[in-house]
Amino acid sequence: MKNRMKKRSKKSGLPPGSLILIGEPPSGHVRVTALDYDETTCIEKRNPDFDTCLQMRATEAVTWIHVEGLQVEVVKRISEAFDLHPLVQEDILNTDQRPKMEDFGGYLFIVLKMFRPEGGGTEPSSEQVSILVGPRSVLSFCERETTAFDALRERIKAGAGRIRKLGPDYLAYSIMDTVVDGYFVVLEATGEAVETLEEKLVLDPQIDVLRAVYKQKHDLIFLRRSVWPLREVVSALARTESHLVQEPTKVYFRDIYDHTIQVIDIVETFRDMTSGMLDMYLSSVSNRMNEIMKVLTIMSSLFIPLTFIVGLYGMNFQFMPELKWRFGYPFALGIMALTAGGLLLFFRRKKWI
Amino acid sequence: MKNRMKKRSKKSGLPPGSLILIGEPPSGHVRVTALDYDETTCIEKRNPDFDTCLQMRATEAVTWIHVEGLQVEVVKRISEAFDLHPLVQEDILNTDQRPKMEDFGGYLFIVLKMFRPEGGGTEPSSEQVSILVGPRSVLSFCERETTAFDALRERIKAGAGRIRKLGPDYLAYSIMDTVVDGYFVVLEATGEAVETLEEKLVLDPQIDVLRAVYKQKHDLIFLRRSVWPLREVVSALARTESHLVQEPTKVYFRDIYDHTIQVIDIVETFRDMTSGMLDMYLSSVSNRMNEIMKVLTIMSSLFIPLTFIVGLYGMNFQFMPELKWRFGYPFALGIMALTAGGLLLFFRRKKWI
Amino acid sequence: MKNRMKKRSKKSGLPPGSLILIGEPPSGHVRVTALDYDETTCIEKRNPDFDTCLQMRATEAVTWIHVEGLQVEVVKRISEAFDLHPLVQEDILNTDQRPKMEDFGGYLFIVLKMFRPEGGGTEPSSEQVSILVGPRSVLSFCERETTAFDALRERIKAGAGRIRKLGPDYLAYSIMDTVVDGYFVVLEATGEAVETLEEKLVLDPQIDVLRAVYKQKHDLIFLRRSVWPLREVVSALARTESHLVQEPTKVYFRDIYDHTIQVIDIVETFRDMTSGMLDMYLSSVSNRMNEIMKVLTIMSSLFIPLTFIVGLYGMNFQFMPELKWRFGYPFALGIMALTAGGLLLFFRRKKWI
Amino acid sequence: MKNRMKKRSKKSGLPPGSLILIGEPPSGHVRVTALDYDETTCIEKRNPDFDTCLQMRATEAVTWIHVEGLQVEVVKRISEAFDLHPLVQEDILNTDQRPKMEDFGGYLFIVLKMFRPEGGGTEPSSEQVSILVGPRSVLSFCERETTAFDALRERIKAGAGRIRKLGPDYLAYSIMDTVVDGYFVVLEATGEAVETLEEKLVLDPQIDVLRAVYKQKHDLIFLRRSVWPLREVVSALARTESHLVQEPTKVYFRDIYDHTIQVIDIVETFRDMTSGMLDMYLSSVSNRMNEIMKVLTIMSSLFIPLTFIVGLYGMNFQFMPELKWRFGYPFALGIMALTAGGLLLFFRRKKWI
Amino acid sequence: MKNRMKKRSKKSGLPPGSLILIGEPPSGHVRVTALDYDETTCIEKRNPDFDTCLQMRATEAVTWIHVEGLQVEVVKRISEAFDLHPLVQEDILNTDQRPKMEDFGGYLFIVLKMFRPEGGGTEPSSEQVSILVGPRSVLSFCERETTAFDALRERIKAGAGRIRKLGPDYLAYSIMDTVVDGYFVVLEATGEAVETLEEKLVLDPQIDVLRAVYKQKHDLIFLRRSVWPLREVVSALARTESHLVQEPTKVYFRDIYDHTIQVIDIVETFRDMTSGMLDMYLSSVSNRMNEIMKVLTIMSSLFIPLTFIVGLYGMNFQFMPELKWRFGYPFALGIMALTAGGLLLFFRRKKWI
Repeated sequence: MKNRMKKRSKKSGLPPGSLILIGEPPSGHVRVTALDYDETTCIEKRNPDFDTCLQMRATEAVTWIHVEGLQVEVVKRISEAFDLHPLVQEDILNTDQRPKMEDFGGYLFIVLKMFRPEGGGTEPSSEQVSILVGPRSVLSFCERETTAFDALRERIKAGAGRIRKLGPDYLAYSIMDTVVDGYFVVLEATGEAVETLEEKLVLDPQIDVLRAVYKQKHDLIFLRRSVWPLREVVSALARTESHLVQEPTKVYFRDIYDHTIQVIDIVETFRDMTSGMLDMYLSSVSNRMNEIMKVLTIMSSLFIPLTFIVGLYGMNFQFMPELKWRFGYPFALGIMALTAGGLLLFFRRKKWI
Repeated sequence: MKNRMKKRSKKSGLPPGSLILIGEPPSGHVRVTALDYDETTCIEKRNPDFDTCLQMRATEAVTWIHVEGLQVEVVKRISEAFDLHPLVQEDILNTDQRPKMEDFGGYLFIVLKMFRPEGGGTEPSSEQVSILVGPRSVLSFCERETTAFDALRERIKAGAGRIRKLGPDYLAYSIMDTVVDGYFVVLEATGEAVETLEEKLVLDPQIDVLRAVYKQKHDLIFLRRSVWPLREVVSALARTESHLVQEPTKVYFRDIYDHTIQVIDIVETFRDMTSGMLDMYLSSVSNRMNEIMKVLTIMSSLFIPLTFIVGLYGMNFQFMPELKWRFGYPFALGIMALTAGGLLLFFRRKKWI
Repeated sequence: MKNRMKKRSKKSGLPPGSLILIGEPPSGHVRVTALDYDETTCIEKRNPDFDTCLQMRATEAVTWIHVEGLQVEVVKRISEAFDLHPLVQEDILNTDQRPKMEDFGGYLFIVLKMFRPEGGGTEPSSEQVSILVGPRSVLSFCERETTAFDALRERIKAGAGRIRKLGPDYLAYSIMDTVVDGYFVVLEATGEAVETLEEKLVLDPQIDVLRAVYKQKHDLIFLRRSVWPLREVVSALARTESHLVQEPTKVYFRDIYDHTIQVIDIVETFRDMTSGMLDMYLSSVSNRMNEIMKVLTIMSSLFIPLTFIVGLYGMNFQFMPELKWRFGYPFALGIMALTAGGLLLFFRRKKWI
Repeated sequence: MKNRMKKRSKKSGLPPGSLILIGEPPSGHVRVTALDYDETTCIEKRNPDFDTCLQMRATEAVTWIHVEGLQVEVVKRISEAFDLHPLVQEDILNTDQRPKMEDFGGYLFIVLKMFRPEGGGTEPSSEQVSILVGPRSVLSFCERETTAFDALRERIKAGAGRIRKLGPDYLAYSIMDTVVDGYFVVLEATGEAVETLEEKLVLDPQIDVLRAVYKQKHDLIFLRRSVWPLREVVSALARTESHLVQEPTKVYFRDIYDHTIQVIDIVETFRDMTSGMLDMYLSSVSNRMNEIMKVLTIMSSLFIPLTFIVGLYGMNFQFMPELKWRFGYPFALGIMALTAGGLLLFFRRKKWI
Repeated sequence: MKNRMKKRSKKSGLPPGSLILIGEPPSGHVRVTALDYDETTCIEKRNPDFDTCLQMRATEAVTWIHVEGLQVEVVKRISEAFDLHPLVQEDILNTDQRPKMEDFGGYLFIVLKMFRPEGGGTEPSSEQVSILVGPRSVLSFCERETTAFDALRERIKAGAGRIRKLGPDYLAYSIMDTVVDGYFVVLEATGEAVETLEEKLVLDPQIDVLRAVYKQKHDLIFLRRSVWPLREVVSALARTESHLVQEPTKVYFRDIYDHTIQVIDIVETFRDMTSGMLDMYLSSVSNRMNEIMKVLTIMSSLFIPLTFIVGLYGMNFQFMPELKWRFGYPFALGIMALTAGGLLLFFRRKKWI
């Protein structure tokens, strides 16, 4: 987060609307996919040029232009083809936006965060997804190449389900649904990590586990910062009065809303659980320490009086009658055994051992 | 909860409205009971077929179709007989829904969580209850076979009370009332468990008790997540403007609302109590440790000087006058007795013993 | 609270509106007092029968029927005389209601909790007071016989103050004012208990005091659960648009509202104080432990080197020159005195003693 | 606070509107100052009688009657001259009111808390200030004699600023401004006290400092309870639709509102700081303890093996070859030096010393 | 903050609207820059006199008068030229205002806090920026000379971007954008400091680091107190119905709003992180202590029995058979080795070493 923030300051001092990429440097790979579909036909174009975009925009069919990988030039060209406000262009490139939805009258501008578990690990990697919903078109921008939307594209091309019959609002819903579904995958990984940590805490409370708990907590704070505003975004879409969202589609946005609430519930539960973990760690550690301390107490308390007695009969006084007794030694041993036995009894009565 | 969540990810990538059972696998047993009643007559059908459902729907009488056990095929058939929205069918099968109420115009869709103490234990087992309230019919779906609604069915068949005279909204209220009543049973068990834990904490603060407290806390978090949204559901029903809920029935929903608030109150109180328990545990443990430490301190502090004295007279100097005294030994013993007595006095003055 | 909750489950499975007494079993004693008064006359009846109630209801004068002690039969008879909704009858008998106010059109139904210090102790004993305000009548129900409302009755009979000139809303206000005044008495006792505990915590931090703090905390949670909803009740009455509450009486309800806020303020302050007490206890205890530990540290650290030195000259080597010195013994004592002095200086410089 | 509360219970059982002084007993001294001023003239009367009050009320000029010191008789007489509601009279005398503003149609009733540092100490002493704003008059009541309002009175008499040109609402504003200004003086003292405590905590963490922190915390809770409702009062005045507050005066109330928010900000910051202080204290104390414990650990761990070695060669076996060695003693000393050195090295490597 | 507050009390007792500088004493340097620009022309005046201000105000062009350094006389003169309310003048000079926005009808009054990292350090230095937006003019006041607004001025003079084409509302936006951009620079420094502290806490948990954490926390509280009200200010501007803010400019204010939310997010995250740090510190410290304690326990527990054994054979009884054994010494050594070995095994089995 800090890295991201540092880049943010690059813009400091520049006039608003300056197009500067904030976030990871462009990998060079930009993949643009354009789909133009209605109930009967579906045309796909890879990396279309400016004119193709304009043509597609002009048709009655729903146009979906999907950009993976952000480059200032590409964003600028497409934005111009669709008359986007300078601030929108800026926000697409500033990939540290908070999830939000803005109604620009002619189009809706939606910003989301997509999460995916990087390399099977539990550390969620986040990237920004910007969606623009126009009257007959949807633009979507991701930070990096991803296979997340391939299934959706295939579904459109196959003409399965309702999607070909419905408008760009349903398409936008489908994209958002895909993104939110990804949250559950990340949360599963988190859930497993939390479970593992919990077991480790009880069995072997090491400082490393605690550090892992803190990392998990940081990740959850990060996830939470994305999910709470998402809730507002989806809620706004489900209640919007914009003509761009049809009444029947709102049921679907309400459905995503339910999912988002579920995600929030789970995130909050994990937060509660990780908070409890710190206390559990401290209890476990102090419990272990107590056990160790108890052994020390008992050993010390047992031997300290005995050591005193042996010291006593190690004194060099000339006149110590016990030293000359025939059974002085067994007598001393007996006293010591009695002392030790008495102490052990005392400790047992006190339930210390 | 994590198990449930994992299943949720099965749906990731599928188009919305896909009917997939999320939750426990179907046990195979599906019990469908259909009641068709008005003030004068009451017909009961077990496992009715599609046509019976359609016929029942057509009558003027109130139709209650109650399904225990979820199977994709059964849900689909009944849903089609009653023209349910695809998302509703999906939600009935996804048994990890949050309690909610949605007004689809022609019918109300209500999702609840039912709790029952499994096998006398304190671990609440939760299952989803979906209720659909139409103009002359109520559909209800449970995850598993249950005897919870038998009393209600008997009451209808016996024609006792107001239920036969009133519409489907009152029937829906009766189902919800049965579910909420179940919460009190679970809370009783929880209350007893909390009480037992509290006593154990004071008498014998073991780490196992602490772990039981954490488990209790988890259960309460889980319960809480079901009860808070339930409050919203009931509140929405008590204030709804849908024609499906008659004005006189709203008093009854307000009554459930009061019960829900009571449940929330009790859950929150238990949460407060279990939170306090951790502090109590730590205080109890540290108190025990303090007692042990005090004994150690006093024993050590008593014997350390004495051991020094006996060591002193164990030195082998040739010229140590005390060693040759006639009463050297009693003299040394006297000094030691004085030292010990002085220390004991000091400790008592300090109120340490 | 748990006892009460258990009884609640008796109702589970019964149809709504079933009249079952939840709470303490009836003591047998039911005291009904009926007052019928206007500006000029005032008639009192003890334990009136059904017909008397009906007659009183019919008069133009304000009728106050006050029932102390709950019995299903009595509540049912009176309720029928005044046409109460079945749910209201149920709520009067279920004495674990939350404070609430409901407008049934023809009458207002108000539920309160009354507190009184039982036997001079600090443990508040709570009982439910239900008030029904009709156009010309007030019904009120308490769980047990009480002298709390005697002063009010005397005031009416004496015709002192405004009460005889005003309607049933002012009478309801007077009853509520009496109940809220009782809170201050309970809070006084709590305040004294808190003060005493605070002093004990500082002077003699025992685990018993801590347990008393926890008990106090539980009581405050309990009190709080009654007072917060009371605030809503009184606020609703002060802003109600029901014709049953006259405009001039609302000033008086606002006055109770202020008192309720004051009670909440005090309860919250006590909660803050008892929370702080746990920290204070832990600090006090750890402070005492620290003092004890310090003494141990200093004694041990003082004697451990000395014991080493005496052990040194207790060794049995044949060739140890010091042992044969004329002033070996004083020399050793000197070294020990120097060591001890040096250590004491070191500790003092470190500000440990 | 507790003392005050006890007195509150004196009223328990009395009819509402009973005039009983709750708070400190009257000191006997009651100072009444009456000002009658308009843009051109200004008349001052000390301790005016009832008729003078009535006359002043009758004039067109703004009448300010200011009472310092509460006596039932005085309050009653003045209240009658200005037709105040019985509950208002009661509230003026019950000096444990919460800050509030009530619109009685003909006049506004405002209750504030005034703070002043008693005798240069940091313990804020609070007293109630009641203000009544009528169409051409302001009444104000303080609990005790005070010089706080002398500057305001002088300003009116001198005719400086806008005050003589504006109405009673501006006068009420001026009184409130004086009261709120006093908060900053108290907060300064608190700020200094907090600063001092913070330094002491770091330099010399004693239990007394902790107790002072708790006292400070109590005072802040007390202050906070006065300031938060004050915010509502001022906000209500700035937005009131009463004809008693002119539109241009509302800007001034908004100004007080800003000051109140500032006071709240500072109080909350102090609360945050004092909360942090407890943690700091515990860290400081545990840090000191750790240092002491470390010294003990190192001394014990150093001498325990040495003491073992000297004990070894203090054994009385007949056949111990070392005892007869020529350099047995230096050899033993050497071993001990090596042991001690090794341990010191080990501790240094572990960074314990 | 405390210093500032003390100065606040200077005003106590003075009539409202008194012009007194609260904050740092004037450095003497006051730099006034006046710009008068429209789409075609742009005139700049340094330190203009009163008449120049009046002339500029009269033109149709946008007038921006920017004052760096506060002096009562300068503020008064300019305020008079633009007819500002006395309370506005007072607020410009009282530099401890909370960020706020007030609509005075003829102009908007905006107060912000500007932060800049002082001398490369992480301690944010705050100063007040007051902005007045009139129909054709903007006044802005800073506490001290700053280069923060030079870039903006250059942009206007160069005529780049939209700024010359748009009105004073866009200019106000540009000033606020500059201020908010500065927050990111401060947060970067904070982020780095937090990161450094976090590493230090794990590697070398010293009390100094803890103190630095507390300082950081204080700074964040301070920052937070400026940012939260800023959010309200910007939100009010984005939704204002004042004619002074054009509809197209509101998009830009919404953009600042997004940035402000981002700043709040980051501040809150840092607060969460610093809170976690205290726990981490305590865990780290207690972990270190535990390690030390464990070594002590093991050493003591190992040597205490051995010391007892050597003491045993140091007793001076005449009849101790072992002492005369040929291999008594090796036998004793053997017993000791066995004891030590057994204990080590026991400790290892308990996983203590």
